[in-house]
Amino acid sequence: MAGTSIYPKYPPDLNEERASFLLSNLKDWSIAHGLAVRPAPSFVESEKDPAGVLATTAPVTLFPSLFPRTCFEEGLEIAQAYNELYAAIIRDEEWLGNIITELLGIDEFVERLWKIHMAVKKEGYAQDLSLGLFRSDYMVHIDPSTANATPEIKQVEFNTIASSFGGLASQVSALHTYLVSIDAYPEEARSIIDLDNLPKSTSVPQLSAGLAVAHRTYSSSQGNRTKCVLFLVQDPERNIFDQRHLEYSLQSQGIRVFRLPLDRVLTDTYLDTDRSLIYTPPHSPSSTFEVTTVYFRSGYSPDDYRNEEDWNARLHLERSRAIKCPTILTQLAGCKKIQQVLATPNSPHLSRFLPDDAVASRVLKTFAPIYPLDESQAGLEARKLATDPETASRYVLKPQREGGGNNVYRKAIPDFLKSQPESHWPAYILMEMIEPPALHNAILRNGEVQKGGVIGELGVYGVCIWRHGDGKLEKGEILENFEAGYLLRTKGDQSEEGGVAAGFGAMDSCCLIDV
Amino acid sequence: MAGTSIYPKYPPDLNEERASFLLSNLKDWSIAHGLAVRPAPSFVESEKDPAGVLATTAPVTLFPSLFPRTCFEEGLEIAQAYNELYAAIIRDEEWLGNIITELLGIDEFVERLWKIHMAVKKEGYAQDLSLGLFRSDYMVHIDPSTANATPEIKQVEFNTIASSFGGLASQVSALHTYLVSIDAYPEEARSIIDLDNLPKSTSVPQLSAGLAVAHRTYSSSQGNRTKCVLFLVQDPERNIFDQRHLEYSLQSQGIRVFRLPLDRVLTDTYLDTDRSLIYTPPHSPSSTFEVTTVYFRSGYSPDDYRNEEDWNARLHLERSRAIKCPTILTQLAGCKKIQQVLATPNSPHLSRFLPDDAVASRVLKTFAPIYPLDESQAGLEARKLATDPETASRYVLKPQREGGGNNVYRKAIPDFLKSQPESHWPAYILMEMIEPPALHNAILRNGEVQKGGVIGELGVYGVCIWRHGDGKLEKGEILENFEAGYLLRTKGDQSEEGGVAAGFGAMDSCCLIDV
Repeated sequence: MAGTSIYPKYPPDLNEERASFLLSNLKDWSIAHGLAVRPAPSFVESEKDPAGVLATTAPVTLFPSLFPRTCFEEGLEIAQAYNELYAAIIRDEEWLGNIITELLGIDEFVERLWKIHMAVKKEGYAQDLSLGLFRSDYMVHIDPSTANATPEIKQVEFNTIASSFGGLASQVSALHTYLVSIDAYPEEARSIIDLDNLPKSTSVPQLSAGLAVAHRTYSSSQGNRTKCVLFLVQDPERNIFDQRHLEYSLQSQGIRVFRLPLDRVLTDTYLDTDRSLIYTPPHSPSSTFEVTTVYFRSGYSPDDYRNEEDWNARLHLERSRAIKCPTILTQLAGCKKIQQVLATPNSPHLSRFLPDDAVASRVLKTFAPIYPLDESQAGLEARKLATDPETASRYVLKPQREGGGNNVYRKAIPDFLKSQPESHWPAYILMEMIEPPALHNAILRNGEVQKGGVIGELGVYGVCIWRHGDGKLEKGEILENFEAGYLLRTKGDQSEEGGVAAGFGAMDSCCLIDV
Repeated sequence: MAGTSIYPKYPPDLNEERASFLLSNLKDWSIAHGLAVRPAPSFVESEKDPAGVLATTAPVTLFPSLFPRTCFEEGLEIAQAYNELYAAIIRDEEWLGNIITELLGIDEFVERLWKIHMAVKKEGYAQDLSLGLFRSDYMVHIDPSTANATPEIKQVEFNTIASSFGGLASQVSALHTYLVSIDAYPEEARSIIDLDNLPKSTSVPQLSAGLAVAHRTYSSSQGNRTKCVLFLVQDPERNIFDQRHLEYSLQSQGIRVFRLPLDRVLTDTYLDTDRSLIYTPPHSPSSTFEVTTVYFRSGYSPDDYRNEEDWNARLHLERSRAIKCPTILTQLAGCKKIQQVLATPNSPHLSRFLPDDAVASRVLKTFAPIYPLDESQAGLEARKLATDPETASRYVLKPQREGGGNNVYRKAIPDFLKSQPESHWPAYILMEMIEPPALHNAILRNGEVQKGGVIGELGVYGVCIWRHGDGKLEKGEILENFEAGYLLRTKGDQSEEGGVAAGFGAMDSCCLIDV
């Protein structure tokens, strides 16, 4: 998968003394600053640490990865436009509903969520405010068909629920900055790895600012109740410190936060007559809190719902007066199908939600083209591209169904389609491959350093708070809309034997470069 | 060893839900804020984590320990007097030398240090400034012979080198404050465990301020050299984060810090013609730094000197123009013998160093009486106390020799002395036992919670910078003198089977109480 080369030689070589200096500083700084995870059972068996007191450095890159400056700036600059886009999509219930209902037959998870939304809608939502802590993920793309193509960012996905790693992203950017400040990198690389080229990620203060604004904007029907924010969590959670950093930031502003697994929702909370969500901490049964905001770090995957009780818990939360981050509509707006509808070439939809043409065209540029394979005009064109081995080599075929893992890549597409009856083709979409430039880095994971070709994914956080109105696009209003820092996640590109292993990837930050 | 009871029932009981809430918050907060240590090999075998990336919560108490408010305030208020006292003792070379030379026959470690001092003195010291980062350790004492005695602090020892845990002390005080702020403690205890009763420890900013002042006060003979502070360290170091917090605080003020084990001193540093100490980092051989300050976190124990090279390294540092924290004289002033000489009842020495009678008498009150067993007037009185089982029960017999471990306690003293020829008696000193009030707490160590009777030791940090002058008490001057935060260390009192294990103890903070 190694793509076009646009960067200078990177990262610099480390001799043994320098590697040891860099690693010992990285390992200590990360723990001293909570850039940590609980160790995986494959690293420390759980019976060795039944109380769960051990921690280890979160998987991180030794170097901040090179990233084209213009691409980085564009990603951050359009964060507000993306917030606006999704807050509009979510408010346009008819439009959103039309697309979601197309998925009802083929995606049981979407179906269950949709049913909850419809049930609450029938009863009437008790809360008009919505909080979005979004993350738009991009890869750098170099058009292989154009000589000397300018690198651009292309969107991989848009996350509307449980956008993770914001708690650690500030820390990893601070880590790389610290390593520069102690001259941990070789001299010959210092013109590249320079503090001016390392943008700070403000994700912790900004994401927690979003939660804090929601908390303070919430108006209780009873003034005298103590209020809190509820983090809906998985239990156990290895990526706990990522969440805790947001919690500590809120706590330092005097906002109480409690963590609640989905299976405790119905035992530890109830709805008051006006559907205020009242939480009673199990460790302190005599105290009660009115929940202003429910922040979901669970509930995004079918696996989080282990039984009917868990589904009832989700309904219970959706019915409540608490501000949801996200509501079910917001969660559903993150479906890949929405991304596809927006990104199909010549789609009329974007302008519906982003009336300013200049803004819409900037957002449009970040879409990798996605085609349906149905019998529409766009679908017929896509069938041509997909059945010709020459053109197919720039695409990936994905099932419409959420979940992934069944993708068919490049030259394998024509034969795969031939094996399927044409009547099944509409169950797939055809997406142009994002072609990232060749890049190398080194990753520390579980105490091992792996070096090799890597692919970086830039996540840009956005905070948006809006009033839903009555489910018509024109109604409602946006109260807050700001960019909220960034994350770079870097994983092996699988281009080499013995390179960086696939899988989770590592926390990273950007080293901006003019290319 | 459980003493008089002066406190209300403490700590409060925790039911299962509350214990789980408190522990999960404690475990996560500690790692997120670097209140951590590398795990002991008895907890995680080193072959399981060869790269040393694992960390665990530093041993901590679940509750801040009760501590009499007046005792705490007195300990902090006399910190400056103690700084003044020791800076005077160290400047009075004749007085200090007379006492140290008495130890030369019986303590090889003291003898080697003294020889280095004498050698450098002969050549002439190249640096007149000294930095002391001191820690005076106290226990609360209730005189068992007086009904309703007021609790007082009595000094256990005065540390003049490598006073540790200052980097973590700020964090443990912040941890207990955090636990209060999230109502982790039961309601019935909240009138005691109240934020107003939890003094913040400022040890990180204050100790690093001391190092920073020394660094900035140092004047180079060559203006254009890049300067740094050198931490002389043991390697490996499990208590690494304690040291790193001080380093990060300096680094954030733009001061470069390097860590250097004793056995690398001669390879990585050299003395310039004016004996400036020049450091070349092994990972960056082309860069050099002039060392302004050497901060010893090693070199305090004979075990740190593994061979003649290590002793040569100590000489090399002492000869250098860098400010030493501490100089050899400062280190030697921390000998128990000095404490004994000061604390012998009716000793004339204190007033020599603390001319203000009011100040001297406050310091004097913190001494537990220590008697020689020689044929002086004080010694003859002490022999009476030591040979009568009734009076002996309030004393501990200690060898003059540094090191400890050979103490004889209370009623065992008369028989022990009888077994020794009287000519050997002067090799011992007789110290009044400090009798701490009964106290309970719970400690988390290696994931296990132990509950039981405990003894707390209050350490008060002090920063002092002085000019040595010419080794005459009247000469020289103090440039900086301030109290620098506190530490509480708590260990099992061994009063119960299955209680808190003896040994290292745990990090703790004070919950002040009026008794």
